[in-house]
This record gives sequence, C-alpha cells and structure tokens, in this order.
Amino acid sequence: MKLESFVLGAWRSGASEGVALRDATSGELIAHATTDGFDMAAILEHARTVGGPALRETSFHERAALLRALGKRLLESKEDFYALSHRTGATRADSWIDIDGGIGTMLAFASKGARELPDGRVYLDGGVEALSKGGSFVGRHVCVSRAGAAVQINAFNFPVWGMFEKLAPAILAGMPVIVKPATATAYLTERVVRRIVELAILPPGTLQMIAGGVGDLFDHLGSQDVVSFTGSASTAVKLRTHPIVTRRSVRFIAETDSLNSSILGPDAGPGTAEFELYADEVVREMTVKAGQKCTAIRKAIVPATMLEAATAAIAERLAAVRVGDPRAPDTRMGPLASRDQRHEVLHRLEELRGESDLIHGDPHDPRLREANARGGGFLAPLLLRCRDAASASAVHSVEAFGPVATLLAYRDLDEAIELARRGDGSLAGSLFTADEKVAAHVAIGLAPFHGRLLVVNRHCAAESTGHGAPLAPLVHGGPGRAGGGEEMGGIRGVLHYMQRTALQGSPAMLAAIGGRWIRGATERDPGRHPFRKPFDELAIGDTFRSNARQITVADIEAFAALTGDNFYAHMSETEAARNPLFGSRVAHGYYLISAAAGLFVDPDYGPVLGNYGLDELRFVKPAKPGDWIKVRLTCKEKSLRADKGWGEVRWDALITNQDGETVASYDVLTMVSVHAVPDAAR
Amino acid sequence: MKLESFVLGAWRSGASEGVALRDATSGELIAHATTDGFDMAAILEHARTVGGPALRETSFHERAALLRALGKRLLESKEDFYALSHRTGATRADSWIDIDGGIGTMLAFASKGARELPDGRVYLDGGVEALSKGGSFVGRHVCVSRAGAAVQINAFNFPVWGMFEKLAPAILAGMPVIVKPATATAYLTERVVRRIVELAILPPGTLQMIAGGVGDLFDHLGSQDVVSFTGSASTAVKLRTHPIVTRRSVRFIAETDSLNSSILGPDAGPGTAEFELYADEVVREMTVKAGQKCTAIRKAIVPATMLEAATAAIAERLAAVRVGDPRAPDTRMGPLASRDQRHEVLHRLEELRGESDLIHGDPHDPRLREANARGGGFLAPLLLRCRDAASASAVHSVEAFGPVATLLAYRDLDEAIELARRGDGSLAGSLFTADEKVAAHVAIGLAPFHGRLLVVNRHCAAESTGHGAPLAPLVHGGPGRAGGGEEMGGIRGVLHYMQRTALQGSPAMLAAIGGRWIRGATERDPGRHPFRKPFDELAIGDTFRSNARQITVADIEAFAALTGDNFYAHMSETEAARNPLFGSRVAHGYYLISAAAGLFVDPDYGPVLGNYGLDELRFVKPAKPGDWIKVRLTCKEKSLRADKGWGEVRWDALITNQDGETVASYDVLTMVSVHAVPDAAR
Repeated sequence: MKLESFVLGAWRSGASEGVALRDATSGELIAHATTDGFDMAAILEHARTVGGPALRETSFHERAALLRALGKRLLESKEDFYALSHRTGATRADSWIDIDGGIGTMLAFASKGARELPDGRVYLDGGVEALSKGGSFVGRHVCVSRAGAAVQINAFNFPVWGMFEKLAPAILAGMPVIVKPATATAYLTERVVRRIVELAILPPGTLQMIAGGVGDLFDHLGSQDVVSFTGSASTAVKLRTHPIVTRRSVRFIAETDSLNSSILGPDAGPGTAEFELYADEVVREMTVKAGQKCTAIRKAIVPATMLEAATAAIAERLAAVRVGDPRAPDTRMGPLASRDQRHEVLHRLEELRGESDLIHGDPHDPRLREANARGGGFLAPLLLRCRDAASASAVHSVEAFGPVATLLAYRDLDEAIELARRGDGSLAGSLFTADEKVAAHVAIGLAPFHGRLLVVNRHCAAESTGHGAPLAPLVHGGPGRAGGGEEMGGIRGVLHYMQRTALQGSPAMLAAIGGRWIRGATERDPGRHPFRKPFDELAIGDTFRSNARQITVADIEAFAALTGDNFYAHMSETEAARNPLFGSRVAHGYYLISAAAGLFVDPDYGPVLGNYGLDELRFVKPAKPGDWIKVRLTCKEKSLRADKGWGEVRWDALITNQDGETVASYDVLTMVSVHAVPDAAR
Repeated sequence: MKLESFVLGAWRSGASEGVALRDATSGELIAHATTDGFDMAAILEHARTVGGPALRETSFHERAALLRALGKRLLESKEDFYALSHRTGATRADSWIDIDGGIGTMLAFASKGARELPDGRVYLDGGVEALSKGGSFVGRHVCVSRAGAAVQINAFNFPVWGMFEKLAPAILAGMPVIVKPATATAYLTERVVRRIVELAILPPGTLQMIAGGVGDLFDHLGSQDVVSFTGSASTAVKLRTHPIVTRRSVRFIAETDSLNSSILGPDAGPGTAEFELYADEVVREMTVKAGQKCTAIRKAIVPATMLEAATAAIAERLAAVRVGDPRAPDTRMGPLASRDQRHEVLHRLEELRGESDLIHGDPHDPRLREANARGGGFLAPLLLRCRDAASASAVHSVEAFGPVATLLAYRDLDEAIELARRGDGSLAGSLFTADEKVAAHVAIGLAPFHGRLLVVNRHCAAESTGHGAPLAPLVHGGPGRAGGGEEMGGIRGVLHYMQRTALQGSPAMLAAIGGRWIRGATERDPGRHPFRKPFDELAIGDTFRSNARQITVADIEAFAALTGDNFYAHMSETEAARNPLFGSRVAHGYYLISAAAGLFVDPDYGPVLGNYGLDELRFVKPAKPGDWIKVRLTCKEKSLRADKGWGEVRWDALITNQDGETVASYDVLTMVSVHAVPDAAR
C-alpha cells in the first residue's frame, strides 16, 4: 500500500517505492511513503493563490468558527484514529494526549479566536502612539495575514497534536497550511487529513499534506512564507541555514527537543505531599509515550540529602510499570516508535553511563526479548544516577529520547538552578515545592533558560496538567538548545503567521485603515441619537455631544449620602486642601462618570441592550464645585456576534470641563442588537 | 592616530595598523582602526559577568533614569559631536537626525520605560490564563532579562543614532551591550562613547565598544546572547548562518537596507497639496544623508497620467539642491561617506540604467570634479525613470545606496501595490493621498510586505516626521529583503532582549513569582484598613472585605434622579422585561461601583491620595432590587514613583451578590503616599 498525500486539491502518491512504515509493536509493514515527483513549487503556489485568498476573505470569527466546526466533527471519528494510533506504539492514554489533546488544542484556538480577536481581518496591536504635539500625526500597529504559505514540519511522536497545534493558529491568522508529518507515523496524520478533506469545512487550498520528504520545496520558499519546524536540533540547523531561507528572511520557527529538568525543593522532603507528587511526575514523564516527548524530564535534580529517598521512591514506582502491547488495557507503557528508535536510545544510554550509574531497569530486559525479536521497539524504563553532577557533561547534552531519566544531587538552590541552566535552553522545567520564596528564587533563576516553568504544590496538583504538557494558551518553545522559537501562547501564536506593520498618518487615515476610531479622526453626525441605531446602522465615528452640567456641592453631598462614599477630598474643603493633588474639594470620580452617563444615555427602549463594562478609565483633571462638565461619545469599534443577534460596540468617551480640558477619558462597552426593537422573545 | 576601543573597562587599541578612516569631503586621514589581538571571549564574558549582574540589580525605572540622565548630559556635548560628524559627509541637518535623533531616541525609551514598565525587574506579559475548572491551577507569562550580552552591529550611515536605537532598549531590558559601529565612521561613535565613559552614569561592564572588526567574537556567542545587526543583506546572511548562531539559537535580529516605495495616489494630481508634498518628500529622501539611508525612497510610483508632471516637479526641486562641503550652511547635500561608496553607487546606477533612463542629474557633474579629485565622495542627485515598470527587474532588486531614485508609472491601484510588493520586503513605504478609501486599500495591500507605512495628506504633513524616519514608539524593520527583524516599537523593542516564559502553578505561587496578586492567591489580613497604610507598608495581597448592602428601588430611583441616567432597564419593570439580557429591572452599573466605593473607602485623611482610574471593569451579573452586594478589595500591584513621593497601587475589586456570584470585576488605581500623613506642603 502506498500512503497518499493531499496536494493541489487531490490525493496523490509519489513515483518511487518510498520508505516502509512499520507497526511499532510487531514490525509489520503498514505502508510505503514517498513524494518523489511532486511539483513542490506548484504545491506552494496552490496554497498562496487558492488557499490564502479564500481564507483571507473570512474574518477572524469566521475562521474560528471553521476550526470549531472541524474539531467537533473530528471528535466523532476519534475511535478510528485511536485504533490506528496503537500502531505507533501509543497506549490509549498516550493516544488521548495526541488525539483528544490535538483536537482540543484546535478547539481552544477556536475559542480564543472568537473571544479575543475582533470580527475583522486586521488585528490592532497596542494603542495609538502620539507622534506630534498638535495631534495631527499619530501612529499605531496593525497585524495582517502574511501573503504566503505556512509550511509545518512535525515530529513523529505526536502525529495528530503536532498537526493541530501548528495548523490552528495559522488558519486563524489567515494563512494556508502545508503539513509535512514525520514520515514514520504519517499514516495516522493521513487518516485524520482524509477525514478533514471529507468534511469539506476548510476552504479549498487551505490545507495540503505531504506524506514523505519535502523534496525541493525549500528552493521555492518566498519571503511571505513561514516555516514552523519541530524535530531534532541538527535538522533545524540544516533547514534554517538553507540559502533561500536566509536570503529571503523566511520566517523560521524551530522547536527542538531539549534536556529538561525537574527540581525537588529543599522543603519537599520524604513524607510531604510534594515529595510524593515529584516521584509520581518523574515516572509519568519517563513512561508517557515511552518517554518520547521533547518536553520530558531528563534531569531529576534533588537535594543531596534526599537522593536516596528520591531514588527509592522513583524506583519503587518504576517497578510497577507494566510494559507491553499498547492495545492491552493494563499496559502502562508501549514500545518506542520503531526498532531503530530503540537502538538509538540504547546508544545514547551508553554515553550517559560514562558518568552515571544505571540504578533501575534492564536495557535488555528478558521479558521484552520475544516481542522485540518479532520486530517491536520495547524498552524498560531506565533510571540513572549521576556520579558527580557538578563535573558531568553528557547529562547536560546527550538526550536519550525514550524512557530514560537521570537523578542529580544538589547542595543548595543556586547549584540546582545552575544544573538546570546547563541544559543551555529548555522547553520546560518544573519545581516541586510548598515554599513561595523557594519558588520565586528558582523560577526567576530558571526563567531566562526556559520557555515554560511549572511549579507544583499540594494545592494545584490535582488540577495540574503536568510537566510535559504544552497548552494552547501558553507559549511552547524555548531558547538555545530548545530551538529559540515560540509556538501557541494563545493569540501570540496566531501573530507568528501575521506581519506587524507600523502605520503613521492623520487620525482619520489610521481610523480608515485600522477600522477603529481614533481621537482626532472625523466625527460623524449620526442623524439621530446613536443609541437608537441598530448594530448594522451604526458607523464608526458616529458621535454624540452632550449638553453641559454644573458640578455643585449639593450634588456631591447627595452622591456621598446615596453611595456612602464620604472620602474626605469630596466632603471637606479644609481636609481636601491638605491633599497635594487636589488642593480643594473635588467631585467623586464615580459621580463624574455617572453624571456623564446621565448626559449621554438615551433612556428609551431600543437597540442598545446594556453596558457590559468600561476600559481604561482615567481621571485626568479633578472637577470642582462650579465647574461644568460635558461628554463626547463616539462609536469607536464594532464586532458582531453573529450567532447571538447582537454585536459589541465600543464607544470612546471623553468628559471635558468649561475650559475644554479633559476631566476623564474611557471606553464604554455596550451590546447593541441587530434589531431596532430587540425582544426577550427572540 | 589609532582609534581606541572601550573593552574590559579600559580604552585599548589593537595590535596591527588597521584600516584607514578618511574624511568624506577631503579624503584626509582621520585615524586607523583595528581590533587585532583583542580577546573577544573575555569581552563577552566581561559583559555577562560584570555588566549584566550590575544592570539586573536595578529596576526598569532605575534603568530608565540612567538613560534619561545619560541623554541629558550628552546633549550638553553635542556641538563637539556635530563638529566631528561633518567628517562623515553629514550636513548640520543630517547630523541633527543622527545626533539629536539618536539621543532623543534614548530619551524616548527612558520615558517609555518610566511610564509603561513597572518599578521592578519582571515584566508581566498578558493576563492570567485559567488552566483548570477549579481555579487552583493557572498560567501567566513573564519576561525576564536574558543572561547574556547584546552584540549590536551598526551601519556606517548613522554612527550615533545607530548606537542609541539599539542600546537604549537593551539597557532598559537589563542586558549589557557590546557596540560594534561600522568601522568607516567609528570615530564619531568613539567620541560619543568616550563622553559616556567619562560621565560614569552606566554601571561598569554595561557598555563596551569595539572600533574595528568583530574578530572571532561569533565563535564565543552563547544561547543567552542577542545579536542585533544593521547593514547589508549579504553580511546578514553570513552572520546569521554562523555555526554557533544556528547551533545555539542565538537570537539574531537583522535590519537590512531595502528597496522602499512611495506611491502618489490617483486623487493627488498636480495642483493638490498632496502632489506638492510628494515631490518635496521624494527630493528630501534622495538628498538627506546623500540618500544613504536604508529607509530612503528608491521607487517613486506615480499614476501614468501624472508621470510627466511628477517628473517635472521633482526635477525642478532637484535642480535647486546645492551639493557641497557639509560644513557650509547653504549646502543641502554633502558627499557620500567615501570615495569607495561613490564608486559603488555609480556601479549600481549602470545596472539600473539598463531598464531606466536618467532624466535628471549628471553622475559626473563637472562642478564636483575638483572636490572629488582631492578625495571627496561627491555625487549629484540622480533621478531615473523606468521604461516599463511591469517588466523591469533591476529597479526591484538593485539598490544604489546614494542620492538615486527611480520613477515608475502605474495604471491602477492594484498595479501600484504590486510594484511596491516586488521589493520583496521593505522597511518603509509611503502613500500620498487625501482619499481614505485609497489609503485603506493600498495600506492593507502593502502591509504584509512592510515594517512601516506612512500615509501623508495635507492634514498631517506639517507634523509628519517623513517617510525615512524610524521612531522609537514604532517598529523599525521589515520582512524579506529588509531582514525579517524588528527593532524599537516602544516596549516591544525592550522585549527583544528578554526571555518570555510561561509560568504554571497555583495562584499563590504565580503571585509570589510575578509580584502581582492573582485571584485565588492568599488574601492577607492587613491589620487595619489598607487605605491607612503608606505605600511601603502595603503588602501585595492585603485584603479588605466589606459589609453587604441591599439594592433597593428607592436607591436606584434616587441614583437616576441625581445623575440623570433614566435608562429604561433601571426605571421600568415592564420595559426591562423586554430586554433579553435582564428580564426585569436592574441597578445601574455605575451605581454598583459607586456603592462599592462607599463600602470600601476609608473616608478620613490618610496616605491614599486619590483614585486615578479603573481598568477592565466588567459587569458580569445584573444586580436587582432585593439583592445584597458586597466588595472585596485586594492590593494587587505596587509601583513606586520614587521622585514623586507616592506610588501607584492597583487594587483587585470584586463585587459579589448574596449567592457569592460575581456581579462586577475591575481594578481600582490609586496613588498612595509614602508618608502616613501626606501634605500639600511637602
């Protein structure tokens, strides 16, 4: 059987015989994979000219809805994916991380996109920058979809999650995707893509998948393309120094496996909850996916005084781990992905043993011999202990990508930090402590060398997602050896597929380009009170200017009596005079914004459903008895909630005094119906 | 004379004779520069172990104060810098961009740092991420100083600005800097660094400067270092593919000169203000610094119908440009940086002339012959016109880095966009139009290919800083040919020198690490009302829990009468029933936060000076007559304004109802005196 690729809108297979893909348990042939003869330039161009334009027609919310629909439908087919996943060596629990975890990551991006991005195509990054005294010249940053293709090269260990954690942010950003799964487990990715193609939810050209090598694809990359790579550091170097990548400054995001540490705090001795949690976590990280995770704990760094106890606790748990057929429900750990992978791990193990002792597990466990003879990649979990952590080097540089970890002893916290830092850049680190001071010291010490840090204590352990799990809202990546890249991190991950551009010009021009009103831009006459206009009729710039109202001592006192807010600066001329900011009695800030609402609210039943909040309220100049205030309210930004029958409308509010000085500045957030007469019955 | 470098805390010169640096006007020898024999590994290590730790002891505000003090003192010496700057070929106006512009950029970062960063060492990036249902496990991102050295390699054209635009964000981030100016004009950088060293404002080891080649410095780079490079694309490729840079994922920021476009809008015909502004700007960009700017306009893209008029307007202005000794007050344009630079430009000119006609200026202007014979690099400004813009290629790829620009004609806006995009990634683009629709269409079309876009109309022209000027608050950089990097952009530029790390754990742990209270973290008993505690005595987590208060129709009506806010949902049971969100009569949101203040405010004179704002106010659940509300107020974050005698204190406020449900959530911002009894007289 020849594994097919989905390219140029159709399923195709390559010209040569290709690479043999085999079952991790039995060594049985599953398929051959090849992309020989593929026109990689045409595949890139298909993404750029068919997928990209179609995707960029849609808004962030529409793209989020595509991802949500896709995720929900894929969950219906997941048992099919689980069955195939066993062939990679994954147990049901391993497969849950890959399949449910992968689809869940896509759904998390769908949700982030709907909640945190506007119903538009331009993302506004940061606020307006004042570039001139007179205010006629301002700046702001926008992010727009890059006009190229996203080439996403994934590792063999998570054939489903690896695709979705990269694909979801790219689609949300408006970039078409070419997925290149690691060939060894591409059959599972292929099955999922086949289902995606059948569902026909994504616009044509948005997703292509090549099962096999990239061929000459890199020769055809352009400056608008993005390459996102997960895999070995050596392949990352090879790809990122490709002459086209460097000459055209192709954006290149690398996430490479790293040597990750977990530190047991000096307070977390035997008998504490944190000690038990630590031993559990080290064993979990060694055995999940048979330790084939780029985030797995490789260095278990424990106080020298607790070395024996930690060794015993971990060894005891390892002894209970059942290694075997990943399909069997009582199997805790399956085989490595292939026999080759097993040989590679054993080779690295020998390097590590030059300075560490093997203290638990037999690399040639006789119980696994028979299964391996049939072609399996089984390996017992192996715990090492470093003879002299301070002088060791292999433990900080050699990664055995399997169920292998090494214990290191530290004398004081600074040595623990130093031992973790010697990984020279890691994806993930963790610390088990109940002591906040220890946590602060270690976390700040480790942070420059880590992309993610987990602190576990008894209070969060039950809900903790664990050392090794990257999560959609948090960045995944790390400095140095970890590749220097970042993925995910919520909207941050979406922006990797967009171009940030600084805009400069008049407020009106920047409002026209960014779709958000800016102070100084044109104020439109809405024709009637803007609160009487349904969502679709409201225009950016629609402005209401109120009458003026005088601040009086009587009103201040009535407000204080009603609310109970008798702060001295409002209530006593003498006491207020002692306040260095006021000098004399001032109105309550809360009164000013309440009175401003009284000045701008249109009281009758209508399309404005309610005020759901205020943003960035600043009291700029105090208002004092005798002052007159008035308010300008301008429609600043609109974002439709198509499924809800209303949209969010942000209003720019400015309270000024009789001299035109700013008293208060804020955004008013309202929900506005798409109907002129909304009704509870709708 | 041998130019000295400032390394390892002392002024030193290299071992060999080195490169001869010459006056751009006369060819006269200024100095020799060499770094032969320098121990580059020691220089890097000096930054990392002396400068870095000293700088990281200080807070963002303290670093901002260092930069401000340094900038102010340097301005006192600027006439000395101006005198030397003429030797680079710069006129007084050119030098203003470099010297005042450079110091001004540093002062702008000082101001941004004081206003937008906290008085601490950890930058909190984004909000808290809920990672669990129960709330015991949360996430957030922090940015901390990278533990390495910032190696900053600058171009020859702005020896002062080039240093400060990179140095300021790095220092603010807490990273020590090694400046490597372009050797050709390093004597001016050296003069400024000499003054910086004399001033002794920066901590030892924070700033080193090497006047000459980088030697083997790259062989000693580590994973925590950052290289920030400005210069040619070919050098950028060479440096970014250095084996150490790729193997250790050294963060590498490149800004390379690019082919930048300026488009004349179809509405901006002869006779309009925008047409005149366009002709002025093209000429300014051709002549400032003799066109030696990486952001300069190289392609002037005009409507075909206006080609003749635009040619005439630009040529007329060019004819009035006086080229000569940069020291003479009536000189508009000085020489190129060197004779070699002139030869290089003439060489590129020939390439461009293969598809464009020279329509103004003589590359061998007899008026400049004598000065050039003495060793000067003088060149008259040269305007070309492309014979067929659509089929041309050199105009989109060959850069003559001097006073050279080419006119291209377009038929419609999409062709104009396409012609600009063919630069394949630019630092800056501009558009001259009075039409907002044109601006929106062109800007969105250009944005993916540009780091910065300027839109000029008659309203902003007087205050516009121009096509070529990078500004501290805006990103400087661009995709593709422009190098793919970003610098500046306000705080964004500071974060380039920091590591972003995702933290996960219990709310209390994350509060302890990040220095900001998080919901769910420990609530401290402040011992007394927290408003009675001066700034230094307030602790993060200090919490006040109020009594409850009942919502009544009488209070709602009194509030409406006092404020004038008679919105129907507050005033009429029947009308409110028609509102799909409320269903029945609700209290004003403004009333809820005002009553909450009544519940939490301590009325007597004391250290809390005032409430200067609210952030992220959200009304979550309506409060109705009969409901009881109460408020929890917790000290969330503190940032001292040491020079002002008070600090900013952010309080987390949560209004709940009788069922413990959230009614409203917001941050209250206050100024709190460092004194228990503040006084106007202080």
